Amino acid sequence: MSLVIIGTVAFDAIETPFGKTDKIVGGAATYASLAASYFCENVKIVAVVGDDFPEKDIEDFKNHHIDVEGLQIKKGEKSFFWSGKYHNDMNSRDTLVTELNVLADFDPIIPESYQDCEYLLLGNLTPKVQETTIKRLKNRPKLIVLDTMNFWMDVALNDLLETIKMVDVLTINDAEARQLSGEYSLVKAAEKILQMGPKYLIIKKGEHGALLFGEGKVFSAPALPLAEVFDPTGAGDTFAGGFIGYLARVGTVNFNNMKNAIIFGSAVASLCVEKFGTEKIKNLKESEISERIQQFVQLSSFVID
Amino acid sequence: MSLVIIGTVAFDAIETPFGKTDKIVGGAATYASLAASYFCENVKIVAVVGDDFPEKDIEDFKNHHIDVEGLQIKKGEKSFFWSGKYHNDMNSRDTLVTELNVLADFDPIIPESYQDCEYLLLGNLTPKVQETTIKRLKNRPKLIVLDTMNFWMDVALNDLLETIKMVDVLTINDAEARQLSGEYSLVKAAEKILQMGPKYLIIKKGEHGALLFGEGKVFSAPALPLAEVFDPTGAGDTFAGGFIGYLARVGTVNFNNMKNAIIFGSAVASLCVEKFGTEKIKNLKESEISERIQQFVQLSSFVID
Repeated sequence: MSLVIIGTVAFDAIETPFGKTDKIVGGAATYASLAASYFCENVKIVAVVGDDFPEKDIEDFKNHHIDVEGLQIKKGEKSFFWSGKYHNDMNSRDTLVTELNVLADFDPIIPESYQDCEYLLLGNLTPKVQETTIKRLKNRPKLIVLDTMNFWMDVALNDLLETIKMVDVLTINDAEARQLSGEYSLVKAAEKILQMGPKYLIIKKGEHGALLFGEGKVFSAPALPLAEVFDPTGAGDTFAGGFIGYLARVGTVNFNNMKNAIIFGSAVASLCVEKFGTEKIKNLKESEISERIQQFVQLSSFVID
Repeated sequence: MSLVIIGTVAFDAIETPFGKTDKIVGGAATYASLAASYFCENVKIVAVVGDDFPEKDIEDFKNHHIDVEGLQIKKGEKSFFWSGKYHNDMNSRDTLVTELNVLADFDPIIPESYQDCEYLLLGNLTPKVQETTIKRLKNRPKLIVLDTMNFWMDVALNDLLETIKMVDVLTINDAEARQLSGEYSLVKAAEKILQMGPKYLIIKKGEHGALLFGEGKVFSAPALPLAEVFDPTGAGDTFAGGFIGYLARVGTVNFNNMKNAIIFGSAVASLCVEKFGTEKIKNLKESEISERIQQFVQLSSFVID
């Protein structure tokens, strides 16, 4: 099953209470495609970078069997750059620098070889670009997952609402679900959002896990309690990549498989935050993932006689 | 198995976005003993009220087979009174009135018939009174659970630390776990708190469920996502009562039974908040509880092949 992931491929400079980095490779499509590559062998990215983007980092994608035909490299231009500093609680952060650069007029090109895609992840990006991506696919994918954030609700709500109508799964955090629906109760928020188009809604609650709503059911996934979160950057993207990567591997979309996909996405996200940037997610062993999955099983299983 | 519960039996006046009440019966021991009574037939309370406390509400305890021999009724004195107003998010509240009244010099009397108690719940109360209760039992109960709150950490930390040393299970919320340990990470907080004496720590996270730490393991219990929380008063006490009531029924204390006890406690707490005060928890049907338990099973179960 082929999986297309669109999103940013970019530079980040990150400061956390544990240290700081120079410019390192980040971006939604980077984290998501690396995460997905552990479950699905046929991951293809659509993104744009400048010619400042290092060849060795493109090699990293290839080493993970990620198809980069859809990665545009703009000559004489610079890659998107974001810099941020996390507060001590690691749950909030200040953006220090945002340089859009090549992202300012990103026009997603879908290579012909991507047209058979059955799974599509629209990573966090301008809703218009997400919509364009859907429209440029000749056949509608079997499953479209859209990840977004409060920023787009603030500056491009109408575009976002138009794009949300076209997708199967929306992933946002709890504050964003409340903002988008105007409802404080997450149950009521989910009811309203599911009337906006998506069949499934995933509400990411960070250290409190995630909720899945759809088919009139609810699933609550735990988060693994961690002694130390080293760098939360990319955790949401990694979650989304692991989620859709698992579904692409299984090949059948239903509530039970979505539950497992959330566990797999949560597992890789919990590994991602153990090191700075993509360091951990770039070098995962199969055994690390399966051990982490087992920890999730142990963490939340109980048997009532 | 006999279960002794000490705590407040009191009047509350509550205001939530859904309405307000006049003085109604509340208090930690009230909620906890009512919740426990659905699982354990041998619940005994230790508490103090004034002679303003209505006979019919004492009858309510008796109707739930709750032994009130340890309930002191002080002639010419008034019962503890608390009044509070919840904010729109229902997660925070302002205390409007606190009248200690009989609680100011509460000296817990343990009737002889309570001395065989095997399970002891020290509901939220002055740590000194909790400690006195333990000391007045001739034999140490098999399991002592202590519930407390940030207020006692602020005004009686040393007493609290002394009392915590003597118990098996401590139940507090996430903010309180951070306050008590000085650690932001709940894993690190739990490590420190488990060195203070208790063998098990339950961290209550409200709408995000609860965590159980102990025996080197962690369990994450979900919270049932609710469309409406009508009145959160007493939810923590109800949880604690359901928790220890279930364990008293099962009769064996181990990690697996504690996991189930948390689910049973969470289930009755989720029912409690559906109506004002004790209205719901006073009138539960067996079928309501078992249906709610099944909802928790549905909510959090997944099967990884």
